[in-house]
Amino acid sequence: MDDDGAAVILGIDPGTALTGYGVVARGRGGAVSLVECGVIRTSPSEPLAKRIREIYDGVMELIRRHRPVAVSVEEVFQGRNAQSALKLGHARGAILLAAAHAGVTIAEYAPAQIKNAVVGTGRATKEQVGFMVQQRLRLREAPSPADAADGVAAALCHAQMGSFPA
Amino acid sequence: MDDDGAAVILGIDPGTALTGYGVVARGRGGAVSLVECGVIRTSPSEPLAKRIREIYDGVMELIRRHRPVAVSVEEVFQGRNAQSALKLGHARGAILLAAAHAGVTIAEYAPAQIKNAVVGTGRATKEQVGFMVQQRLRLREAPSPADAADGVAAALCHAQMGSFPA
Repeated sequence: MDDDGAAVILGIDPGTALTGYGVVARGRGGAVSLVECGVIRTSPSEPLAKRIREIYDGVMELIRRHRPVAVSVEEVFQGRNAQSALKLGHARGAILLAAAHAGVTIAEYAPAQIKNAVVGTGRATKEQVGFMVQQRLRLREAPSPADAADGVAAALCHAQMGSFPA
Repeated sequence: MDDDGAAVILGIDPGTALTGYGVVARGRGGAVSLVECGVIRTSPSEPLAKRIREIYDGVMELIRRHRPVAVSVEEVFQGRNAQSALKLGHARGAILLAAAHAGVTIAEYAPAQIKNAVVGTGRATKEQVGFMVQQRLRLREAPSPADAADGVAAALCHAQMGSFPA
């Protein structure tokens, strides 16, 4: 909860190289506003253990700073190969672990659920997601890179689908 | 290092349901002995975040108790599908993160390297790995379940391939 009694939600789009995030405040009436969004970037030239530690630390820092009521994480994934799935799992594990260590509720949504909540169709393109995120939060432009917009979309999905005290 | 100047190595075979581990002491001359082995078991009925936290906590507890000079982790994996790869990645991420948080050196070996170091062929069966682990460590029987033997094999591989002060 922030000072106005709004529920703060941290949405995350997991990735090894780029983990997108969006922090959204949901007012008592359900109105949403953007607090912050961006990406946690790690270098492919670093050892995997260092990269997932950076993701863990980055998520932990966001949780400490924003005190979200929930972390909303995209439930990956579709159609990649086993090697990239394995890598992505490392990143996602670090994110879930940071939320668990911080004692924050974890909500998981399939990509189609997130798209459906934000755009109205589970088959929305990245561009449509960015556009609707921009509209819903009254932003001048869509968050960039697309990973950041996907993190915001995950937060918006939970703002809409999660249960909040009236 | 333990009291006799032996280097303690923690070997780990990552898995979501069963993470096998073996703790091996390597004396100055290279002689190896088993300190402990077993499995960290998590329940499929629990949420994934809880399960990977249990794996993280279990590895952290082993590190605290044995103070290994290195954590040797099997570099998975071969031929599973993307969904199981993703899950396995979560578990492996938790293991690497525990080692990184504890400040312990991480060594990663491919399954074929581990089999080659322990059995002498990269294509060894699970039974052969168990048998050679038993022989090398002068045990009454092979560690059980096979995941525990695989954890010990990862530790033995590093005892043989890693660099240690003379």
